[in-house]
Amino acid sequence: MTPIRINHVAIVVPDVAQALQFWQDALGMTVSHIERNAQEAVEIAFLPVGEGEIELIAPITDDSGVARYLAKSGAGLHHICLEVADIEASMAQIAKTGAELINESPRIRDDGIRYAFVHPKSTGGVLLELYQLPTVAKP
Amino acid sequence: MTPIRINHVAIVVPDVAQALQFWQDALGMTVSHIERNAQEAVEIAFLPVGEGEIELIAPITDDSGVARYLAKSGAGLHHICLEVADIEASMAQIAKTGAELINESPRIRDDGIRYAFVHPKSTGGVLLELYQLPTVAKP
Repeated sequence: MTPIRINHVAIVVPDVAQALQFWQDALGMTVSHIERNAQEAVEIAFLPVGEGEIELIAPITDDSGVARYLAKSGAGLHHICLEVADIEASMAQIAKTGAELINESPRIRDDGIRYAFVHPKSTGGVLLELYQLPTVAKP
Repeated sequence: MTPIRINHVAIVVPDVAQALQFWQDALGMTVSHIERNAQEAVEIAFLPVGEGEIELIAPITDDSGVARYLAKSGAGLHHICLEVADIEASMAQIAKTGAELINESPRIRDDGIRYAFVHPKSTGGVLLELYQLPTVAKP
């Protein structure tokens, strides 16, 4: 039940356009799309690399969770996301060892991705997200 | 000149064996090898995932750079490493845009990997490593 790949690495920045001056212009990465998520009050730029992505996340209000994180901890690495084949099996195995999950059961995004977070105190200080991609229906 | 892949994500922990209780036992990852680097005074566990790796890094003395980082910032995400095809070309492009490289020219590891670090102040708070893998000689 080993994870499949690093799906993404998420970086919190004060401003996406400014951060892109490095990741896009200096490093030569390409932005696949920029998304505004009103519910989380963030703007996210997605930069694919190999089988994964770099995500640059900036708050768009002063009172969002990401805004508070930025004010407290500063810009930088925020979390990593590993893709798994069966998120419920992975979560059950994690819980069985006594590690702490932030979500008791998987949450589901609009695009069908199932996800859950593991608490940094169980991972060695890293906020870890697990992703299970939706099964593509066979024709 | 876009990067090829996320080569690794490095996590600083107080103790490798303890951290493996989560990454290996709870998450089901496999350790490919554990390395003691006397020069950097660290122990590193390598856990392959997809085309990349998670690296768990712990200090083995109290006065190493990693020991000081751990004392100051606590355990957690330390740096990400992107693999590039031509590190000198990438470094030249980065320098041209005014971003700050920590290494002026690539350093070379015993295994032939060429690497350099970009300063967090130019990336949006992330310590970024670039890797160029050695060319394999054709038979």
